Amino acid sequence: MSVRPIFVVAGIGNSSGTGGASARLFAKAGYNIALISRESDRLHKFAAELKTGDTDAAAFPISDYNYRDVQSAFRAVRTRWPAADVRVALFNAGFRIGKPFLEITEEELDRAMDTNVKAAFAFAREAIAVFRAQSIDEARGGKRGTLLFTGATSSLRGNTTTAAFSAAKFALRSLSQSLNKEFGRENIHVAHVVIDGGIVTDLSKSRRDDEWAANPDVALSPESIAKSYLYLANQDRSAWTWELDLRPAHEKW
Amino acid sequence: MSVRPIFVVAGIGNSSGTGGASARLFAKAGYNIALISRESDRLHKFAAELKTGDTDAAAFPISDYNYRDVQSAFRAVRTRWPAADVRVALFNAGFRIGKPFLEITEEELDRAMDTNVKAAFAFAREAIAVFRAQSIDEARGGKRGTLLFTGATSSLRGNTTTAAFSAAKFALRSLSQSLNKEFGRENIHVAHVVIDGGIVTDLSKSRRDDEWAANPDVALSPESIAKSYLYLANQDRSAWTWELDLRPAHEKW
Amino acid sequence: MSVRPIFVVAGIGNSSGTGGASARLFAKAGYNIALISRESDRLHKFAAELKTGDTDAAAFPISDYNYRDVQSAFRAVRTRWPAADVRVALFNAGFRIGKPFLEITEEELDRAMDTNVKAAFAFAREAIAVFRAQSIDEARGGKRGTLLFTGATSSLRGNTTTAAFSAAKFALRSLSQSLNKEFGRENIHVAHVVIDGGIVTDLSKSRRDDEWAANPDVALSPESIAKSYLYLANQDRSAWTWELDLRPAHEKW
Amino acid sequence: MSVRPIFVVAGIGNSSGTGGASARLFAKAGYNIALISRESDRLHKFAAELKTGDTDAAAFPISDYNYRDVQSAFRAVRTRWPAADVRVALFNAGFRIGKPFLEITEEELDRAMDTNVKAAFAFAREAIAVFRAQSIDEARGGKRGTLLFTGATSSLRGNTTTAAFSAAKFALRSLSQSLNKEFGRENIHVAHVVIDGGIVTDLSKSRRDDEWAANPDVALSPESIAKSYLYLANQDRSAWTWELDLRPAHEKW
Repeated sequence: MSVRPIFVVAGIGNSSGTGGASARLFAKAGYNIALISRESDRLHKFAAELKTGDTDAAAFPISDYNYRDVQSAFRAVRTRWPAADVRVALFNAGFRIGKPFLEITEEELDRAMDTNVKAAFAFAREAIAVFRAQSIDEARGGKRGTLLFTGATSSLRGNTTTAAFSAAKFALRSLSQSLNKEFGRENIHVAHVVIDGGIVTDLSKSRRDDEWAANPDVALSPESIAKSYLYLANQDRSAWTWELDLRPAHEKW
Repeated sequence: MSVRPIFVVAGIGNSSGTGGASARLFAKAGYNIALISRESDRLHKFAAELKTGDTDAAAFPISDYNYRDVQSAFRAVRTRWPAADVRVALFNAGFRIGKPFLEITEEELDRAMDTNVKAAFAFAREAIAVFRAQSIDEARGGKRGTLLFTGATSSLRGNTTTAAFSAAKFALRSLSQSLNKEFGRENIHVAHVVIDGGIVTDLSKSRRDDEWAANPDVALSPESIAKSYLYLANQDRSAWTWELDLRPAHEKW
Repeated sequence: MSVRPIFVVAGIGNSSGTGGASARLFAKAGYNIALISRESDRLHKFAAELKTGDTDAAAFPISDYNYRDVQSAFRAVRTRWPAADVRVALFNAGFRIGKPFLEITEEELDRAMDTNVKAAFAFAREAIAVFRAQSIDEARGGKRGTLLFTGATSSLRGNTTTAAFSAAKFALRSLSQSLNKEFGRENIHVAHVVIDGGIVTDLSKSRRDDEWAANPDVALSPESIAKSYLYLANQDRSAWTWELDLRPAHEKW
Repeated sequence: MSVRPIFVVAGIGNSSGTGGASARLFAKAGYNIALISRESDRLHKFAAELKTGDTDAAAFPISDYNYRDVQSAFRAVRTRWPAADVRVALFNAGFRIGKPFLEITEEELDRAMDTNVKAAFAFAREAIAVFRAQSIDEARGGKRGTLLFTGATSSLRGNTTTAAFSAAKFALRSLSQSLNKEFGRENIHVAHVVIDGGIVTDLSKSRRDDEWAANPDVALSPESIAKSYLYLANQDRSAWTWELDLRPAHEKW
């Protein structure tokens, strides 16, 4: 009996967004699920929800997104399933801050860098170390593993209220590109997805109207985003993608 | 009995590359195939090869890639299958010219613009006119149609021997972006794929060694590229892609 | 007595815009001026206006922007001043077309490509051929010559009504990059300037209000643009620029 | 008697590079010079060297590049010259780290972010706060002030050994773009210069050969870079630049 591969995701929030949808979709696709996020209770509850049928899932709560906590959490994943391969790792965490530049505090800047950049470096480091030690998986595109990063409009353009957030997202995009170039030769696939629009989550639903959330022409569904992540994870080594953008059909850009 | 949708592709060459592989894959995926390319005999032969089982296929040969010929060929597709919807159109033609700038003749520049740009405008015009007249296809992502363009490394960077080719590929990329923005609101999906590496074709096999062609870590297989095109055609309207890049795992970039 | 160097500019319009301001500024800076543009009478009048003091100027009218006419005009410049060096060449011509994609005619597409791309190739070809035959000018940055291209917002982004114009401007930008890379090694400097905003010309003044035209915070003055061109022409070979953007202080982008 | 404006620069090293050359050039151009850098003795010595004729100069040494130290240093500049305007501020500091991703330590990542990003945020914050309180300087392009950032090849492309450095430089570039967009409307000019090649410094001279350093076709001279900074500081509000690239004539890119 073959062991199910592991999908590790950091950044789950209340599980109504991209991280949650990705966890659900990869579970359906045959992966066991490792959840790294804050708010332990909520995370354990989501892990329990995912544990159905053949799917195993576990929560690896952290107190905050920073280098050390994320490093420890990722290492705990390997302890939890010592015999299984981590085949896909998704860094979906993000501290989004939108305010005039002069109002951004040093603490907010630190948090933007800790969450979006340093935690990502730690996550990437652990993922790549694991991938390198694994064999090539011929059944999933001929790779050792796939490392995915969630980007945003701010990954490509700084703007009037995004000085801190955009700086962090530019950094994350650069990291994904450096890693793609450095580890492609070891059949480790690193990809970056630019989410260019509003995602339907419990939070965005509470802020916009129901009509918006119900209209797939204008709102990004987390499930659709997750499908792209699964697609990337399955791409052949012969033709794989570093970056793609995702936006709703009617989005102005 | 439902009518099979049509996949129109321009740029088939000897059918060993991206155009041919795409035609084969979309045929398998339930489409009838319309082939627009030069060299009538070769094209008819390939159409005959595709006609198996439920698949219908037809050749629409042109004497050269230019506005008028491509326009006429596309219109003939609609005459051939009056009751069927054109759901996916792929512009895969390209006149690649690599030589020092001062050696590029006016004729070569004309041909680069005719093949890569003007023919693409005519192709896009016909595709979009057809798409707009069709209903939204809820089974294939909630779109009226998908228009795909094959890009290249030269779509993103001019270089020492690519003055003409790169100019034309930049123009094509721009066209795809303009169309994505203009027609997204009508649920017409336009995407551009940057092929960043050497594709395995009969021609490239004859130029490089067999080892290269047989190694999916270093050579782009047309079949893998075609899978990305099919993926794009099936993307949800809620999260669709304008541009993605494709390269082999070990490619330096 | 040293011979004045020549500044060749294509694209003068009614001389109230970037081409005209550049001609005036380079005349002041010690160049003789060669004007390539349509509308012979207007052009000869402007040449006469420029001929003051030590400045020599001449008109090289063309019937239309296309490969052959521009090529002939540029060659006539060399005949006019056989002993002088052409040190700076500015391609400032542009056929701007803004309309929905489906309304763009084949003729308009042809004209966009002829004016913005093919005429530019011919202009660049002649300029580079001249530059290569000249010695390095140590007094002006250590170059054989500088070839400048006027870009636009549409050089970087396709948009809903710019399918043809943007395609052409992307192509022009690519040409400038290819040439920069190919001829830098021969100390030929090629640069591209992205004009990202509305330029004050007689035409734009008639369309917008006087307040706009008089406010340098919101409107691009041709004289300011011309200063950037002169700066680029004088840059050292040790640190020269391929591309810079220009926009007014208050421009939203 | 008019008060000389102040040029503040962070990142001087041993004064043989871009920061040093910029200080010298702005001194010649009529500015008093404020130097923010590490290594107090060296910095005081350079300040003393700059103090000739009408030029006043002062050292504001910091123990390390981080938010607080840079903030304090910049504030001390204002105390030093209470009656003078800070018209140009250049953030030229950079911690360059090139090594395989898995060898980058948490400490190195922290330092990369502290030096290249957080210190830059603090520097920018102080500069912009000062600029906003000043009147528009009609003699220098109609601005309140100019904030310049030194970028690198790694500002545009992540690569195999630049995961940390490039992430930080992407972040810095994004910061410069956000600030340009946010503060342009207040006539504060923010620009980013991509230095794409090797700069001649004492360090690079010791690593490469003398022939390289002496050849302006292949090596970037700090003086040439400084000239671009002065040019940017003097650009008109009607046509100013966010970003330009600088490389030597023969550089391959």
